[in-house]
Formats: sequence, structure tokens, C-alpha cells
Amino acid sequence: MPASDCLLCRPGNPLKTLWSNRKLRVVDAAEAGFPGFTRVIWNEHIAEMSDLDGADRDYLMNAVWLVEAALRNELMPQKVNLAQFGNQVPHLHWHVIPRWPLDSRFPQAFWAPPVERSPEQVLAWDVFQEQLENRLPDYWHTLRHALDTLPPSV
Amino acid sequence: MPASDCLLCRPGNPLKTLWSNRKLRVVDAAEAGFPGFTRVIWNEHIAEMSDLDGADRDYLMNAVWLVEAALRNELMPQKVNLAQFGNQVPHLHWHVIPRWPLDSRFPQAFWAPPVERSPEQVLAWDVFQEQLENRLPDYWHTLRHALDTLPPSV
Repeated sequence: MPASDCLLCRPGNPLKTLWSNRKLRVVDAAEAGFPGFTRVIWNEHIAEMSDLDGADRDYLMNAVWLVEAALRNELMPQKVNLAQFGNQVPHLHWHVIPRWPLDSRFPQAFWAPPVERSPEQVLAWDVFQEQLENRLPDYWHTLRHALDTLPPSV
Repeated sequence: MPASDCLLCRPGNPLKTLWSNRKLRVVDAAEAGFPGFTRVIWNEHIAEMSDLDGADRDYLMNAVWLVEAALRNELMPQKVNLAQFGNQVPHLHWHVIPRWPLDSRFPQAFWAPPVERSPEQVLAWDVFQEQLENRLPDYWHTLRHALDTLPPSV
């Protein structure tokens, strides 16, 4: 796929950018029912991790680890899920997904069909999810401070 | 989850070990319809990447990159998918999944429901899959040589 056809190369992506520099950007994935779901997007149009040189690979992964740590510190998920697929948009981006026992797909993957829940579970998750959403500004604040520790991109 | 209950800590896991040292092991995931699907399993019972120190995190990821490179060199997939979930088995393991346009779920995630295919597509994939399976010994050979370049674990 040429960069000219790539969704992640096009300007005007509607997702909220939480932090960016010349090498990468970090966005709120804004996936309904998954508060805190964050994406780390490499700016250059590259498909695979092994297409990056070692220094850039480390740079990108260090950003992913900082996202994971900020999620854990601020939202305390049961588990963090990390994924780099790109089957539909072959431009390097990492999904960093905080997971909780009552989210709609736990313990299955985010990409699996929803798990059946009782009405009580749905209600409990709705209440908890609202608390998580209220915590997002704190998470984003912590995240930005953490990403500011990355070496400057040149 | 204590290590005593963990599937990845229990001896006698039936999956074929392709390479191992004290820190990690690399196994053939043996997922039907996904030739070359490989897992990199950290030996110590640890749940999250941010629970590892930086040196061990780099060590594990370097193994993942070597798996990706060997897959690309020997099997030439359309895309490589990388994932670390652990919702059901919270013990660090990376899925490294070579993907092809006619595999049963492309371009969806491996964890998504199967995509509908025509009989011709199913037949074409069966033929291609057999060729891939015949290439697996070469992939494993290249993979082992690549993993031998990792620094010794101490």
C-alpha cells in the first residue's frame, strides 16, 4: 500500500492526539467500552517492526512501555494487551489496551466476539467504566509527562 | 494467578520447542490453518512487560524481532502480527503470526471470527498452505541460527 492511500498518513485523522514528536504520535483510540485504549503510531509509513533499524525499534517500544506503565499506574487494569497487526492499514501502530474482568470481551481478545454477561455484570461494568472515564485526564497527564522523558527525535 | 496454577509454568507443555535458553523459549504454536505461528515465552512467571527490567525487556523483544525476521525471510508473509495478551494465562508470551490474504481470518485479527471464503479461495489456500508447511523446517533452521546470536542468558 502506497503512503498516499494510507489512513495513518492522511492528515485530519479525527482521533485525539495525546502526545507527538517527529518520530511518533500517541492517540486516544476512543473505542467505545474500552476506556484508556491508546495507540502509538510511528509517523513514517513503514509496515513491519523489522523494517525499522534497531534504534528506531527501541524508540518506538520505549514509547509503548511508557504507555503501559502510565495505564497501570493511573487505571490499574487487570491486564494490559499489546498488539501490532496492520493487516488493513500496513503502517506501524501499536494497540495498548487496558483490560478488566467485566469489559465486553474479557478474557478474550479485544478482536473476539463479545462475551455473554448478566444484566448485573453489565450494570457493574457501566458504573466502573464511568469511574475509569473520569480518570482519563489524570492518565493522559501522567502519560504526557512520561513521554516527555523520551530522547528528543532529530 | 500463582505460578503453581500457570499453564506456561507447568512442565510437559506439548508444543514443540524450537529453541530455548534460561530466559526464554520459542515454540511452534501449531495452530491449525496458521503455519509458522510461533510463540516466544518468557520463562519466569511474570505478567506484564513493565514488570521486566529494561535489559530483560530488550532481550525478550530482540527474540521477537528475530522470529519476525526469520518468518519474513523464509515464509514471506503478507504481514506479521505481534500480540502479547495474557488475559487467560498472565505469564508473558508473545504471539508472532505470519498472515496471508487467504488465511481463514485475513484481514481480520487471528482472534476474530473466520472470514467467508469461496470454495476456490479455500482450495487455493489449502494448496498454498501445504507449500508453507513444507517450508517450516527451513524456517525453523533459520530461526534457530538467528536465535543463537542472542547474548547468552546468565
